Amino acid sequence: MVALKLGMVGGGQGAFIGGVHRIAARIDGCFDLVAGAFSSDPARAHASAAELGIDADRSYADFNEMAKAEAARADGIDAVSIVTPNHLHGPIAEAFLAHDISVICDKPMTATLAQAESLVAAAEASKGRFFLTHNYTGYPMIRQARQMVAEGALGDIRIVDVNYLQDWLSEAPTEDNKQAKWRMDAAQSGGGAIGDIGTHAYNLACFVSRLRATSLSATLSSIVAGRSVDDDARITLQFNGGARGHIWASQVAIGNENNLTLAVYGTKGSLRWAQENPNVLLFTELGKASQIITRGGAAANSAAMAVTRIPAGHPEGYLEAFATLYREAADVILTKDLSGATIGIQDGLVGVRFVDACQRSSSNGATWIDLR
Amino acid sequence: MVALKLGMVGGGQGAFIGGVHRIAARIDGCFDLVAGAFSSDPARAHASAAELGIDADRSYADFNEMAKAEAARADGIDAVSIVTPNHLHGPIAEAFLAHDISVICDKPMTATLAQAESLVAAAEASKGRFFLTHNYTGYPMIRQARQMVAEGALGDIRIVDVNYLQDWLSEAPTEDNKQAKWRMDAAQSGGGAIGDIGTHAYNLACFVSRLRATSLSATLSSIVAGRSVDDDARITLQFNGGARGHIWASQVAIGNENNLTLAVYGTKGSLRWAQENPNVLLFTELGKASQIITRGGAAANSAAMAVTRIPAGHPEGYLEAFATLYREAADVILTKDLSGATIGIQDGLVGVRFVDACQRSSSNGATWIDLR
Amino acid sequence: MVALKLGMVGGGQGAFIGGVHRIAARIDGCFDLVAGAFSSDPARAHASAAELGIDADRSYADFNEMAKAEAARADGIDAVSIVTPNHLHGPIAEAFLAHDISVICDKPMTATLAQAESLVAAAEASKGRFFLTHNYTGYPMIRQARQMVAEGALGDIRIVDVNYLQDWLSEAPTEDNKQAKWRMDAAQSGGGAIGDIGTHAYNLACFVSRLRATSLSATLSSIVAGRSVDDDARITLQFNGGARGHIWASQVAIGNENNLTLAVYGTKGSLRWAQENPNVLLFTELGKASQIITRGGAAANSAAMAVTRIPAGHPEGYLEAFATLYREAADVILTKDLSGATIGIQDGLVGVRFVDACQRSSSNGATWIDLR
Amino acid sequence: MVALKLGMVGGGQGAFIGGVHRIAARIDGCFDLVAGAFSSDPARAHASAAELGIDADRSYADFNEMAKAEAARADGIDAVSIVTPNHLHGPIAEAFLAHDISVICDKPMTATLAQAESLVAAAEASKGRFFLTHNYTGYPMIRQARQMVAEGALGDIRIVDVNYLQDWLSEAPTEDNKQAKWRMDAAQSGGGAIGDIGTHAYNLACFVSRLRATSLSATLSSIVAGRSVDDDARITLQFNGGARGHIWASQVAIGNENNLTLAVYGTKGSLRWAQENPNVLLFTELGKASQIITRGGAAANSAAMAVTRIPAGHPEGYLEAFATLYREAADVILTKDLSGATIGIQDGLVGVRFVDACQRSSSNGATWIDLR
Repeated sequence: MVALKLGMVGGGQGAFIGGVHRIAARIDGCFDLVAGAFSSDPARAHASAAELGIDADRSYADFNEMAKAEAARADGIDAVSIVTPNHLHGPIAEAFLAHDISVICDKPMTATLAQAESLVAAAEASKGRFFLTHNYTGYPMIRQARQMVAEGALGDIRIVDVNYLQDWLSEAPTEDNKQAKWRMDAAQSGGGAIGDIGTHAYNLACFVSRLRATSLSATLSSIVAGRSVDDDARITLQFNGGARGHIWASQVAIGNENNLTLAVYGTKGSLRWAQENPNVLLFTELGKASQIITRGGAAANSAAMAVTRIPAGHPEGYLEAFATLYREAADVILTKDLSGATIGIQDGLVGVRFVDACQRSSSNGATWIDLR
Repeated sequence: MVALKLGMVGGGQGAFIGGVHRIAARIDGCFDLVAGAFSSDPARAHASAAELGIDADRSYADFNEMAKAEAARADGIDAVSIVTPNHLHGPIAEAFLAHDISVICDKPMTATLAQAESLVAAAEASKGRFFLTHNYTGYPMIRQARQMVAEGALGDIRIVDVNYLQDWLSEAPTEDNKQAKWRMDAAQSGGGAIGDIGTHAYNLACFVSRLRATSLSATLSSIVAGRSVDDDARITLQFNGGARGHIWASQVAIGNENNLTLAVYGTKGSLRWAQENPNVLLFTELGKASQIITRGGAAANSAAMAVTRIPAGHPEGYLEAFATLYREAADVILTKDLSGATIGIQDGLVGVRFVDACQRSSSNGATWIDLR
Repeated sequence: MVALKLGMVGGGQGAFIGGVHRIAARIDGCFDLVAGAFSSDPARAHASAAELGIDADRSYADFNEMAKAEAARADGIDAVSIVTPNHLHGPIAEAFLAHDISVICDKPMTATLAQAESLVAAAEASKGRFFLTHNYTGYPMIRQARQMVAEGALGDIRIVDVNYLQDWLSEAPTEDNKQAKWRMDAAQSGGGAIGDIGTHAYNLACFVSRLRATSLSATLSSIVAGRSVDDDARITLQFNGGARGHIWASQVAIGNENNLTLAVYGTKGSLRWAQENPNVLLFTELGKASQIITRGGAAANSAAMAVTRIPAGHPEGYLEAFATLYREAADVILTKDLSGATIGIQDGLVGVRFVDACQRSSSNGATWIDLR
Repeated sequence: MVALKLGMVGGGQGAFIGGVHRIAARIDGCFDLVAGAFSSDPARAHASAAELGIDADRSYADFNEMAKAEAARADGIDAVSIVTPNHLHGPIAEAFLAHDISVICDKPMTATLAQAESLVAAAEASKGRFFLTHNYTGYPMIRQARQMVAEGALGDIRIVDVNYLQDWLSEAPTEDNKQAKWRMDAAQSGGGAIGDIGTHAYNLACFVSRLRATSLSATLSSIVAGRSVDDDARITLQFNGGARGHIWASQVAIGNENNLTLAVYGTKGSLRWAQENPNVLLFTELGKASQIITRGGAAANSAAMAVTRIPAGHPEGYLEAFATLYREAADVILTKDLSGATIGIQDGLVGVRFVDACQRSSSNGATWIDLR
């Protein structure tokens, strides 16, 4: 396998998610990071590049310049990872797509619906591909669940319930908390908990159930005094086909680190999964003992095994799930085969519409918003 | 300790909760069951009485007759347990209270708000005491939680989240399922999941947090086709003091037997508890490792120890928690001291008002109902 | 059902296990406590009796006197519970058996092998029955496991592994710890951890597997400085039929309250159970997903259901398991049917021989002791 | 950071652990795989190399040739990973050490004690470094535990208990199971469960406790009929300083995938950890509630944080722990600083001596073997 050439925008010194993307890109050896605009601050950008072993002539301080220069090189990048605050995702993605360079973008896709719609148009006009890193979809047990639902193991879906609980914003963050700072600024983030983790929750609900909400009612709260964005979100959903759904996303639920849980209930059975111990999936058929399905174990199905690296009992984690998205992006870029489980531009649009609908609903007393 | 004399209405052959009450009444030796109207069917009533070792002259086929006869005896009962379908709770309780006999009544207090209000008046006019068996309040770790909240261990309460999930009504029950049958009939039950388990959830939320809802928005669903009462309920709550709450009660959540969970989040910490493994309580203070508090263990507080029978590591269960309510009822009857944690007539009224408000809200598109 | 009349020796004020026996005797309504010699100290004996509502003329200060007096009464006791320190079990049991009064005795059966053999002879000569309260055998999931093993669900048994870990003796107990005091005195207890909890572990291994050790090698340690009895025991076992076994019993394993766990591994499958959450049993068939069998749940078998009081999801605990032994004792006394799962005089002898063999092995450098 | 150049011996098509080493080497970007002798079968070797993107001129069919050729190149490898069956570890390692090329070797170090002693001499004579991949030592919570023990959080260590349970060899493996085949051949493996997983267990016990066994008694069994190596091992240990230990390693414990658990009990507290959910560590101080320490969480110490890549609640797994060993090897090679937690030649010798002692003990009826 020849590794693809990867660039990155954002993710310089002091950032969190950039490092995650870099490891994820490396794990399966599908990408070599060769270029970057790691910061909008030139000094920090070049220092970060040097630290990462990037050649100086491929370290940029401006993403437009980077897109143009890389597109002009014979050995230019095949894809770019975008790991900036949300409001920059759209403009940066468009800049690279304009040069037919594929984009691997952190979620949510954009900070506003207008940006999302503009980006969809840009993606349609480009030969580059667009991938959104809803990384929880990369867990083998999530793939297992998705396939089991599709095969009818649960019967007709009645209820999809997703909680995504954190506690790192239980108090007003200190001034120097870079991660918290831009997320607390609606202009940069487009929203609080609803955008940061609510979109993951909704994406996961749809990915596993293969359903989509037809309407929703949301209550977004700013529980910590003085906070301008939401830090707690409750969303009631109506799905196509009649299923009900509920999402609770909170960043002030003390004692929860990254407690994302999924439960899907059908007429014949149910599936339950928790991200903090992601290698197990609980499956119950009505009238039978619950079963513990394990990654790589006796009951793992083909969808799970396709993204499993090591034998059962040796836990794979967050970085491997993330790496699966990178590997699948590489496969699509190389083969043009879009039949897999990758999350793309339409999913991104669905996510931004979800945030927008939640904000409109909440502003109007949790009124129901039609999503069809 | 001299045991009090107990009667029972309902709970004959084939019933479930009657047997639970009888064991609960026996565990601490506070009550002797000496009389009963175990069924409205005289043959079944007397056969049940004989089986239970009740003297034939204290086996009744009619509760009014029983109230009158027992009140007239020198050795008449001190209290009566009511374990019939919900719509009979009110009339029966009133019959005994009219003779100043104390009442220990299963929940919900009544099937309708009118019945509840009538019963409150009857209780106020009686020298008998009224106790409602919201049995989950009897668990030592629930008492622990309640005391910790009162002492400020969590700071100001922000969120109370209670799920009560079962799966025994995931399909239409068979004809001979006596437990299911009357619960599916709104005239007898007063409601479906909302009355049967939703009231437990709301009572628990209030008991631990010492808060009360000022308003709510509810969606009650009948997920199984052809069902006339709700089997799935979602309630969003606003509490006095500003806390938010959420209750999810479902009887169609396959894989959940009696999965009642409580989480209380405050400004300083949180508590999490699950009924199916009730001897542990998870406590997290912001910025510290979570602690596993155990019944009888090193961190058990005085409220928990007061209702703990055996040392840590030897699990106490559902019947012991239930027995605690019986013991506390006996204490009140003997001492007239009402300062404890007993659940009484006002709590019962609050519960029926909750059901009523949920039904009104749900009928009006989940509109907010004021509870003040 | 008419309740049997029960007496008790030991279990006065300040004792632990006496109270447990009294609750266990009450739960199913099979016994009425009507007589007792609750202490060898007359003042304490009579004060305890009064507190328990025992008529003064049936409160005794001497067990021999009690046995004689009760045997002489028309309404004399049917059975006596013995809840004294271990070294008194044998003499007391013999006193009552001599009058054909059945005995329900706490474990271990006796403090010495000589006492055990004497008691076996006494039991054989009596019309009274002898029951030993290895209470963990009363858990429904243990009955489930025993039946599954008997039905061949595990194939041939290869390994039986039992751990019984506590921490309450991690330090030298304070002077006033009555429970610890007599247990630390070999003359009264007959041994430390090996007798107090090791016998439970071995009994459970045999009860579920229906195997018996043919030889063993043991290391008994006194880990806390200055302790004259063992507080940590490791025993390797060879069972009939070729299975291997291991028991670890410790009273100095900090963080373990009463952590008794059982695992049975066969050629086809395995079972795993933990006493602190006793309502679940993990069952794995080779090559399949593990199953969570629950008390009262869909996969509960007839042996488990026979000792289950309440529906799945409402936890039964230690006291209910203990009560099952009392109920079964009542059944045997009333029906003379010995075909059930009760633990009797021969099991008691097996247990005392186990302790004796462990002590001899450990004294000789963990040499193998033949038990056939 | 400039990546070091890495070669590999073994790990061609169809192998398991080779792929693990390659991912581990990549995760932190410390190594580039540039050469290999991936199989002793030339066709398979070169096909594997091509698949891995290795230049044809650096694909070798013979490890001696590879060591010589790479040593002669200006851009020759800095280190070689050895992922062959155990009996080849020693000769291969010596071949590279002879050319001062550092060695990263899978465990156990060698198949025989003679090979181990020869290798120790070779390592001492070389400028190359030797690293043994006891990968479980790379888990952050294991580093946390090790530091807590060193700091005295547990007081004096009393008991170290390690179980390593698997079930993949519960039946005789099929002919084409390459992983099982060589492990079942004592000439290639040097032993069964004792070498394959028992060494991990012992290494972990020593790594965390910083103790070493002074004597041991072992029983190695071949439970599956016809098996020539052990598949179940029980070892009782005496440590320096007076602590006791026990290891149970089994490959026939149905229902256990890779269930490695560690418990360390001291005079003041205990630590408990399980590899299948490795991001949590249970810590109990005598007389306090148990604490759940999490990787990256509030109570993580400096040793854990030093090997933590991503925030709390996003699980890191087996591959990250393995990668930590690669990163630390890179650090040592670059800096020559040996003060860290790396596992080296002396630990390897300790492990092989442990296997040898267990085999001698077991052959002599579990006699005690002195290890001093």
